[in-house]
Amino acid sequence: MNFASDNAAPVAPKILSAIQKANGGAMPSYGNDPLTKGVEDKLKDIFECDLRAFPVATGTAANALSLSVMVPPFGAIYCHRLAHIEQDECGAPEFYTNGAKLVPLDGDGGKLAATELERVIALAGAGYVHHVQPAAISITQAGECGTVYRPDEIAEIGLVAQKHGLGLHMDGARFANALEFLGCAPADITWRAGVDVLSFGATKNGAMGAEAVVFFNMERAREFEFRRKRGAHLFSKMRYLSAQLDAYLTDNLWRSLAANANRQAARLAAGIANTPGAKLLYPVEANMIFARLPEVALECLAVSNILYYRSGQDREGNVRLVTSWNTSEHDIDHLLKVIA
Amino acid sequence: MNFASDNAAPVAPKILSAIQKANGGAMPSYGNDPLTKGVEDKLKDIFECDLRAFPVATGTAANALSLSVMVPPFGAIYCHRLAHIEQDECGAPEFYTNGAKLVPLDGDGGKLAATELERVIALAGAGYVHHVQPAAISITQAGECGTVYRPDEIAEIGLVAQKHGLGLHMDGARFANALEFLGCAPADITWRAGVDVLSFGATKNGAMGAEAVVFFNMERAREFEFRRKRGAHLFSKMRYLSAQLDAYLTDNLWRSLAANANRQAARLAAGIANTPGAKLLYPVEANMIFARLPEVALECLAVSNILYYRSGQDREGNVRLVTSWNTSEHDIDHLLKVIA
Amino acid sequence: MNFASDNAAPVAPKILSAIQKANGGAMPSYGNDPLTKGVEDKLKDIFECDLRAFPVATGTAANALSLSVMVPPFGAIYCHRLAHIEQDECGAPEFYTNGAKLVPLDGDGGKLAATELERVIALAGAGYVHHVQPAAISITQAGECGTVYRPDEIAEIGLVAQKHGLGLHMDGARFANALEFLGCAPADITWRAGVDVLSFGATKNGAMGAEAVVFFNMERAREFEFRRKRGAHLFSKMRYLSAQLDAYLTDNLWRSLAANANRQAARLAAGIANTPGAKLLYPVEANMIFARLPEVALECLAVSNILYYRSGQDREGNVRLVTSWNTSEHDIDHLLKVIA
Amino acid sequence: MNFASDNAAPVAPKILSAIQKANGGAMPSYGNDPLTKGVEDKLKDIFECDLRAFPVATGTAANALSLSVMVPPFGAIYCHRLAHIEQDECGAPEFYTNGAKLVPLDGDGGKLAATELERVIALAGAGYVHHVQPAAISITQAGECGTVYRPDEIAEIGLVAQKHGLGLHMDGARFANALEFLGCAPADITWRAGVDVLSFGATKNGAMGAEAVVFFNMERAREFEFRRKRGAHLFSKMRYLSAQLDAYLTDNLWRSLAANANRQAARLAAGIANTPGAKLLYPVEANMIFARLPEVALECLAVSNILYYRSGQDREGNVRLVTSWNTSEHDIDHLLKVIA
Repeated sequence: MNFASDNAAPVAPKILSAIQKANGGAMPSYGNDPLTKGVEDKLKDIFECDLRAFPVATGTAANALSLSVMVPPFGAIYCHRLAHIEQDECGAPEFYTNGAKLVPLDGDGGKLAATELERVIALAGAGYVHHVQPAAISITQAGECGTVYRPDEIAEIGLVAQKHGLGLHMDGARFANALEFLGCAPADITWRAGVDVLSFGATKNGAMGAEAVVFFNMERAREFEFRRKRGAHLFSKMRYLSAQLDAYLTDNLWRSLAANANRQAARLAAGIANTPGAKLLYPVEANMIFARLPEVALECLAVSNILYYRSGQDREGNVRLVTSWNTSEHDIDHLLKVIA
Repeated sequence: MNFASDNAAPVAPKILSAIQKANGGAMPSYGNDPLTKGVEDKLKDIFECDLRAFPVATGTAANALSLSVMVPPFGAIYCHRLAHIEQDECGAPEFYTNGAKLVPLDGDGGKLAATELERVIALAGAGYVHHVQPAAISITQAGECGTVYRPDEIAEIGLVAQKHGLGLHMDGARFANALEFLGCAPADITWRAGVDVLSFGATKNGAMGAEAVVFFNMERAREFEFRRKRGAHLFSKMRYLSAQLDAYLTDNLWRSLAANANRQAARLAAGIANTPGAKLLYPVEANMIFARLPEVALECLAVSNILYYRSGQDREGNVRLVTSWNTSEHDIDHLLKVIA
Repeated sequence: MNFASDNAAPVAPKILSAIQKANGGAMPSYGNDPLTKGVEDKLKDIFECDLRAFPVATGTAANALSLSVMVPPFGAIYCHRLAHIEQDECGAPEFYTNGAKLVPLDGDGGKLAATELERVIALAGAGYVHHVQPAAISITQAGECGTVYRPDEIAEIGLVAQKHGLGLHMDGARFANALEFLGCAPADITWRAGVDVLSFGATKNGAMGAEAVVFFNMERAREFEFRRKRGAHLFSKMRYLSAQLDAYLTDNLWRSLAANANRQAARLAAGIANTPGAKLLYPVEANMIFARLPEVALECLAVSNILYYRSGQDREGNVRLVTSWNTSEHDIDHLLKVIA
Repeated sequence: MNFASDNAAPVAPKILSAIQKANGGAMPSYGNDPLTKGVEDKLKDIFECDLRAFPVATGTAANALSLSVMVPPFGAIYCHRLAHIEQDECGAPEFYTNGAKLVPLDGDGGKLAATELERVIALAGAGYVHHVQPAAISITQAGECGTVYRPDEIAEIGLVAQKHGLGLHMDGARFANALEFLGCAPADITWRAGVDVLSFGATKNGAMGAEAVVFFNMERAREFEFRRKRGAHLFSKMRYLSAQLDAYLTDNLWRSLAANANRQAARLAAGIANTPGAKLLYPVEANMIFARLPEVALECLAVSNILYYRSGQDREGNVRLVTSWNTSEHDIDHLLKVIA
């Protein structure tokens, strides 16, 4: 049983079927196929606006390429200290931006606050030649601590970005989980709140390896295709990425997959909250639970067949548990039994 | 009917089945799965040596990452003027090497000659601080003109590389086709001939999106994993890449798929050779035909449902026709009928 | 006696005096001093237009930084095969552009022809995602073979650049020598002919280490200061660079220094033309002579105290002889006597 | 009167004389001159060891190039949050390392503590492919707050670097000032304490624009010359940089220039300590004073002809005052009178 990561889950059946269905015969390569065009159209409907969308295969590619078109080499990118782009991409954003600087900031529950961004950017020295130049803000939705930005929180950040002329990027590796929690329109937490570019994730939520880079700010999209190719992320047999995204976006599959993951996370959180000696470290709003468990629970976990991560720098008793599109109530109940 | 590229072909059924079969349940991510380990073992058997193998999803990633561990930013990479890395990757090798210089060379039939390499490298100014420093040779097997390096041709190039302390990279996007033509052991055209790193292609030959970077020189592999991750080419759900490669390497599937493509190419070449006014531009040794067709044949092609490329800089009458793992005799005969 | 390079010459006395004079007391650093402002003003007068000018200390810095603001990482720079940026900068342009591709072209006498540029750029695949994108043309004035572009030759190249939306850069390491030969207005071979950015050289012509990057296209200048600082080429004690340039531009010093170098080169060329068995390889238009010398002359040179370069790839009998601002008639006559 | 920066000071007379003296006639370019060789020899004597030394013209070049040979693109560089490389070089280290990550750390008085480095590096995830890899530590001597590392503090840091296989770089822009304070041997705070590469500054201490990159670890020097050229920091007329360094190192000039700056700083610090309402923020150990001044003193300063910096993020009442090789007692007394 795997609670280590939603990356460990298999591909959702409907997405796998779509891949098979796309396997009919010859089809133009490098994205000049009808499926790829269709994905963009579906995203326009979902986000209720004009946009450009480009499939890539990894979340790191989506993030790093998004930033590469927003940030000059001498630019600064403001992000949370725990952000995936700062912690877990082995410097991919620095590589793709040709050496821009990530400025890691603190923020409660893994979220950046507009006030802190305003404070830091105002002091950053825009125009001062000795300093890297404020260029973009990147936020993660849902965030690294499993919490979710509210629409007004994003809109406030969007205003800071706008005021200082910065791009606003959203790492939406778990965008569906965040949306499912909020119940708002996708537009409310993206372009209406000032987001320029979204890494629209699917892999963690049931796809095989497919994300879409979504540009609400069309001007930012101009260089994208060259940078994607140059980064070796333009797939010759693109149809298989697009088929995944097409199925993901059809009949609300993306929402229902996320809904299950969130539901099981909530069930798990409730169980942990009731476990004597256990403590949830953050509000559980998406599909990640961070908890401190009593020693005896950790020992039982360690000898079980359940996979999970120790979390935090001291790693004392803290665990990260991630639910997936295919996590079942039975899985949750089994896990709760082990730690009880 | 598509003769434009082997990229336009679908996925071979056995490879698609392997993907489905890999979809059983949770599996460790980022390559820590048994399938990925198995691919490396199969390649050891095939190449009859110890090696390191890393799956990536695109041929450009395989090439650019291979070069990135062989070449410092101030290095020179010697390749054919028509090489994919020089012509068709939008500067990916320059990106991944942080700005190394590709030195394009001439060579008959799309192949580099050891004598020309020796001449150029000897004059390159090794150690001279004003010049970029000779660092690697990259050859393509089968090459951009559809021709195939013989083992002794590669071995001679290997000696030049060794003499000057350069790495030798092989772009094997169509490695199976070359091997099928030669009928020799895989080792004979790789490590036994001095090749350090091979981009072992599968995508063009029936996979969905999977290549292996194969290191015969283990020292070169040390940095690879960091550079792959940093390039955003480490797949979280790696099992689906490895499943493709595993099926590809099982029961000689890779050889039989290439055998069909080569056989149909030979059939097509014979037909063109017999077409009045038509002329093959290069020996047809793999699955690509470059031919000059008479005007009337071009006109018939243009109004047919057959896709293909005009080739060459003048594009006057020259066509590139590529056969695939799934090209049928019927396809060839239909094409020949159109141009006859 | 040194004919190897104008780099071997010392600093012209008036320039050294200016450095001393600038040494009075405290002065604002990083270019916020009156001397630096003054240099820009003097260049505006000389070029009869508004412009931005930035001192740097090396010609390679001037070239690489100029290109870095004109060319995206996925861009192509068209230059002569013998260009300094292609041959002699150890990849600095690739470094500063984050991996753009230099496309080396042939051209008589070290000069690019507009027709050849048009032909190549038209075929380059602008907008085609697999190819690097045409971004800039770089020409050298005077050129690597000691020849000089005429105003109309540059204007034709300027039209090609304009037609295709490319930037036009001029490497003017020996700009003064070219101008002295032509006798036209500086504007005639720069902005009036379509040049966007000029590396305005002084070091080879009597300065200690000072060049100015001159932007006729102000839009291109926006990022320059950040890239200069980031390249570590913003001098804290900038006044000493600016003092050099100020003296260089005062009372036509730059022109008279170049006039002497050209005059001595002409004298040397005439002498070589009259030497039996010797042959000038290119018209001598600036301060560089490329000649084929008879064996006996080479032997005499080899045992003399005169420094020079063998030139060309075969180096058989070919020499490069460079005159400087301080070369004397006596030096020339001595050299001619040795090879006679 | 200028207390804003030691960069605002002119060139020391003996250094200017040396430049003049170097102006005799032709001399081999690009460092192949006797002066450049001599500088290396003098540094060997001073540091009592074998070493390689390379002149460059700016401190940022010295730092960024030093790091570029120690750190792969996927590497992490640990430095103080206030370090010049982190704050004031517009991302030059990121540029020269092709995108390595600077990890800013806290530390009292602008100094890093070995214990904090050990803690952070131990948790950094060496070998873990998702994280940038620990590669170098950079410390500044004297530091950004005007304090000086003691030999044992550096040696402890050296042991951390050695334990984890990291390079140790010292930014010695004010190395002479630190040494003058400590009174120890130069070796004691460099190679004997584990420093691999030193940016040996001269510009801030009386030179025009000259620093030496000093390699105690010869293996690290191998790539340096190519990277310097590629960074456009190889001067054709190198003799003028070397002449500065030669004079600087002759007859202890470097020590006596720093001694004056330190002496005047001590005098100023004593005066501030005696000023009612004023407070020194850090121990004054080199030539920089950070102080909080009473409102009335700030008002008097503001209307005086004295230049200085407000410091700190809030800038409330905090000033930075820097003395130079040419600061006089009279300057100090005048400044003290203004703020009294």
